[in-house]
Amino acid sequence: MNPSTPFQSLILAAGMGTRMRSDTIKVLHPLLGTPLIGHVTRAALDAGAARVVPILGHQREQVEAWLRTQSYAEAIHPAFQDEQLGTAHAVACGLSALAPDIAYTLILSGDVPNLDAETLIAMVNDAAGAGCDLAVMTAILDDPASYGRIIRSEQGHLNAIVEFKDATEDQRAITEINAGIYLARTAFLLDAIPTIMDAGTDNAQNEYYLTDLVALAAKNERAIAWPVATPELVQGVNDRLDLARATDFVRRRTLERWMRAGVTLIDPARTTIEPTATLEPDVTLEPDVTIRGSSHIARGAHIEQGCRITNSHVGPGARLLAYSYLTDARVEQNASIGPFAHLRPGADIGQDCKVGNFVEIKKTRLDQGAKASHLTYLGDAHVGRNANVGAGTITCNYDGQNKHRTTIGEGAFIGSNTALVAPISIGQGAYVGAGSTLTDDVPARALGIARGRQRNIEDWADPTPE
Amino acid sequence: MNPSTPFQSLILAAGMGTRMRSDTIKVLHPLLGTPLIGHVTRAALDAGAARVVPILGHQREQVEAWLRTQSYAEAIHPAFQDEQLGTAHAVACGLSALAPDIAYTLILSGDVPNLDAETLIAMVNDAAGAGCDLAVMTAILDDPASYGRIIRSEQGHLNAIVEFKDATEDQRAITEINAGIYLARTAFLLDAIPTIMDAGTDNAQNEYYLTDLVALAAKNERAIAWPVATPELVQGVNDRLDLARATDFVRRRTLERWMRAGVTLIDPARTTIEPTATLEPDVTLEPDVTIRGSSHIARGAHIEQGCRITNSHVGPGARLLAYSYLTDARVEQNASIGPFAHLRPGADIGQDCKVGNFVEIKKTRLDQGAKASHLTYLGDAHVGRNANVGAGTITCNYDGQNKHRTTIGEGAFIGSNTALVAPISIGQGAYVGAGSTLTDDVPARALGIARGRQRNIEDWADPTPE
Amino acid sequence: MNPSTPFQSLILAAGMGTRMRSDTIKVLHPLLGTPLIGHVTRAALDAGAARVVPILGHQREQVEAWLRTQSYAEAIHPAFQDEQLGTAHAVACGLSALAPDIAYTLILSGDVPNLDAETLIAMVNDAAGAGCDLAVMTAILDDPASYGRIIRSEQGHLNAIVEFKDATEDQRAITEINAGIYLARTAFLLDAIPTIMDAGTDNAQNEYYLTDLVALAAKNERAIAWPVATPELVQGVNDRLDLARATDFVRRRTLERWMRAGVTLIDPARTTIEPTATLEPDVTLEPDVTIRGSSHIARGAHIEQGCRITNSHVGPGARLLAYSYLTDARVEQNASIGPFAHLRPGADIGQDCKVGNFVEIKKTRLDQGAKASHLTYLGDAHVGRNANVGAGTITCNYDGQNKHRTTIGEGAFIGSNTALVAPISIGQGAYVGAGSTLTDDVPARALGIARGRQRNIEDWADPTPE
Repeated sequence: MNPSTPFQSLILAAGMGTRMRSDTIKVLHPLLGTPLIGHVTRAALDAGAARVVPILGHQREQVEAWLRTQSYAEAIHPAFQDEQLGTAHAVACGLSALAPDIAYTLILSGDVPNLDAETLIAMVNDAAGAGCDLAVMTAILDDPASYGRIIRSEQGHLNAIVEFKDATEDQRAITEINAGIYLARTAFLLDAIPTIMDAGTDNAQNEYYLTDLVALAAKNERAIAWPVATPELVQGVNDRLDLARATDFVRRRTLERWMRAGVTLIDPARTTIEPTATLEPDVTLEPDVTIRGSSHIARGAHIEQGCRITNSHVGPGARLLAYSYLTDARVEQNASIGPFAHLRPGADIGQDCKVGNFVEIKKTRLDQGAKASHLTYLGDAHVGRNANVGAGTITCNYDGQNKHRTTIGEGAFIGSNTALVAPISIGQGAYVGAGSTLTDDVPARALGIARGRQRNIEDWADPTPE
Repeated sequence: MNPSTPFQSLILAAGMGTRMRSDTIKVLHPLLGTPLIGHVTRAALDAGAARVVPILGHQREQVEAWLRTQSYAEAIHPAFQDEQLGTAHAVACGLSALAPDIAYTLILSGDVPNLDAETLIAMVNDAAGAGCDLAVMTAILDDPASYGRIIRSEQGHLNAIVEFKDATEDQRAITEINAGIYLARTAFLLDAIPTIMDAGTDNAQNEYYLTDLVALAAKNERAIAWPVATPELVQGVNDRLDLARATDFVRRRTLERWMRAGVTLIDPARTTIEPTATLEPDVTLEPDVTIRGSSHIARGAHIEQGCRITNSHVGPGARLLAYSYLTDARVEQNASIGPFAHLRPGADIGQDCKVGNFVEIKKTRLDQGAKASHLTYLGDAHVGRNANVGAGTITCNYDGQNKHRTTIGEGAFIGSNTALVAPISIGQGAYVGAGSTLTDDVPARALGIARGRQRNIEDWADPTPE
Repeated sequence: MNPSTPFQSLILAAGMGTRMRSDTIKVLHPLLGTPLIGHVTRAALDAGAARVVPILGHQREQVEAWLRTQSYAEAIHPAFQDEQLGTAHAVACGLSALAPDIAYTLILSGDVPNLDAETLIAMVNDAAGAGCDLAVMTAILDDPASYGRIIRSEQGHLNAIVEFKDATEDQRAITEINAGIYLARTAFLLDAIPTIMDAGTDNAQNEYYLTDLVALAAKNERAIAWPVATPELVQGVNDRLDLARATDFVRRRTLERWMRAGVTLIDPARTTIEPTATLEPDVTLEPDVTIRGSSHIARGAHIEQGCRITNSHVGPGARLLAYSYLTDARVEQNASIGPFAHLRPGADIGQDCKVGNFVEIKKTRLDQGAKASHLTYLGDAHVGRNANVGAGTITCNYDGQNKHRTTIGEGAFIGSNTALVAPISIGQGAYVGAGSTLTDDVPARALGIARGRQRNIEDWADPTPE
């Protein structure tokens, strides 16, 4: 469903966004894990934009730095607006970064994050099909408030955008408003923007407005208004309430997609799946589950209440019990994790393994069928097939200066409340006595033990302890 | 409020439900802990159905197996539909399983889970009172979409159901639609269904439709339309979005009932109580609490945020601190549990006991006033009155092959970071020194201790450690 | 924006509230941490009430006791209504507690908790400006149900309140209803209430009604109706459903205020901030976070999913990972806490410290840069700068009778799985060997160690362990 017409995109992203009351520029505020500008850029690229020109101003270094880390960095050609003199001025700053031979230019706002590629493709196709110079995205609102009103000709062409303060009663009754998103023929844009800039400003704010493009295109009847399917798609983010609203919109759209694909969400109102994550059919997510980043949840996995999964892989049929917290981890088929398990980066849990409550695992592989069921810390370790790590086992991987590795062999049995001082290796089938602190290797099938001998001192307590 | 008229129920449950995109048949998908077919069966039985005939097809073994485990299994008489040839065909498959002497037969859908016994009783009573052959449950919809329209006579009888595609403009303007639930006189049904089957199919899908019953009943003016109180009651489940919607409806209805009975829910939108659970007045549930299965929460109990309670009993005045996870457990009066406590099957916590954070308890009884406050695992144990189990205590109940029991006497004091290697018994009023690993019994009032002697090695670290 | 007119407030709070089905009187039921009567009292005082006269009846001792613990206790002058004989009778019981020289008296209901000071100030200013004897707060409802209807004169004066059962069809069509909140000139009230009481009761309930004030004021055209901005402000609490609704209203109003002030709420529908807490800009709260009591969250702090923070201070830039539970604790700048950390009263975590998973801290100071990363209990301790407390460390602070202190010096390294039997002091730069149970002090820069020597017993396991 890519558009037949080649286009590029300009994204207005220079303004600070004072109503956010933040030290961070508005377009860097995250929405479900991705900054606003990332959502807009991604939509443009997914729609087929050949290049993207973000117009940067405040905190341009930070915005540019973020864009440079993205997989699509090569398609980004930033331009800079040192002073914010209005939307037309912003576009003027980006003209030289455009490719003049790409037929159309889509002008997006960095703070309008809900637009999806499907909508952009539809607009580009419709506008190109109509052969117009300029298409203005519009929305039909129940309460058009103080937005600029869309004035259409009898033939349906776009005649003008009238600002609310200049509008007559009749015009104010119009419910179609300017959404601030434009598709322009590139040649028209390269011609029209300098015209607007040359005309100077005669308004109170001393700003150059992109809406002046309409008059230039309309005089040849080459402007159209393109209404969007639902106004939420063009909701702007001006303050934190708007940000919460946009987050909710993108969240619900994402969830609906996964439910249609066969994922059970016990309570969608209490589920968060970032748009970057993927799931397979017959996955069940209980309430308050959050799936973040590049996570993937395979078929039949069941994720209980309150799990938080970041950049992790959960294998088919695995079960994550409540309040498990995974970051950069991997859980294989039919493994059982939690409740209250913490899998840190490099935790790699094999098929049929069990990781129980109050267990923390970091940079550690558990081979198939291994178990660490309670109150354990495994760091920088390898645990062999079917080994059993008892309650309260701790790998002492850090000596205050360096980290060392622990190896536990296949079928080994680590008694409870044991400290394994790394580097250390427990052999295959070996047995470690409960309560031991081991500093030396234990050979295969040996018993390693290190503890004091029990003494009982009779009549130590008063006959009637309080 | 049982109906005066005896009735039995047929439940259509043979279809796979492809829009669920699942390996599991639709009617086995759980809604608040019970499969869809369980909700429908339960409503029919609670309304007074003398027998229930589910019509099974896809995955009939699994559906039947589930039904057989229910307390009401004796009332279930499954019938089988090998090919899915339409709703009338499904009913035809069940005719021989009906009791011909039970006056009325209620035909339900296994994927319409929101209907409650009250509604079914009202329908049965009204229809029997009207002496009709057939009552069709209907709903009044704001947007009747493509549902079949209800055509009433001037006297209000049901004349016909017109499918949307066959309907005139005027008929399409009708907002009363067929909900697909029928009450038929059994004698009429036993007569009419073979008539429908004999007539053969003349539609594109080659299916036999239950709506053809209407024409047969209507010609004697013995059909009525019975509108349901609210359309949500007859919402069908066709995909996971529908399932989420139905779950939310049943969830809210359940919560409203408990709030009226005197339960405080801080945030009903963030509370789940399965319909199988029970609560007493002056219970408080904080947000994100889930009460599952056969759980019972007694008067005055306070359940903090995020607790998940399955098949467990919580006594009067008990307090469960946040994120406690209970399964098949028991907590007595005024006990305090959590935060982050895990009570596994067989945890039995006495009056005034305290189980603190990061504590896991399995098959263990704590007598009145006993405490296990931190970072502890108690499995297969008995802890006497007022005994104090110190932080980091672990019962080593598993030797790699068998589980063994630990007994801690009344008033005993178990020092921190202790491993009790079972089988072991700590006597009444005994004291166990911190850091001990004990393998032998400790007599009453004795001190048991087992640890290495402390050595200090001076000047071990560099004068200026980094 | 304080009102120019001096006023005092009467609060009706004597009724039990049987529809709550509770052992606790209605006005003591908490709404976001404060009893209903606390919300009403706070609004009156914030609006400028010079004194507040709660009319108490059922459970008057408990209500009075709660009020006496509040910072504003001096402004409270309770009066008592032994029998509940109607709203006018309640006010009659409070007349002698009023200051006759305070011009106006605002009559509030203890079960109408949503009213804010701004609304009360506006009503007082408008009514005093109008020079009336009586202002009745009203609401415009879509469905006025059975509330008393407001009858206005042609000039807009309040003529009468007609009870629903006495109303004509035309009067029932009126959508402006009596909200049960009154502002009276004190002199008028002191005169009118005895008049009402002298007139006796001639109704079925044998009660004296406050609405009779209207007739007395209206005859001199000195009564006005004062419609409130939104009906939710005057929602009463009669059962637990109402309580949940009011909680949601106050919750959303509170959240909106913080979002406008620059706080990011990922999902406002899943966030609770009690009105008593305060936050700074650029704080981020993930879903399911609860901020309670007098907590303060400083600029740039990030609170992950499911944290529950009570009466605690979180410093600038601090990060609380998921499911951290803080009570009466303090976390300084850039510290990192959790996930699954439990900071109990007196936990005082310094700048740049790290408290990791399954760690419990009570009455313990961590100086800058100290770490306790895993499975640890620190109670009654002091941990010096940059000290490292290893996994599984437990301060044995309780000997069964008394609590003792542990001191860990600057830069000390406590090996994993260590028990420190208090009172004990680990010197600056000292090192404690893993698995030790220490009972004696360790000098600065010394190694303290106490554990059994390791023995390996070869061929202890069968060649092929099962």
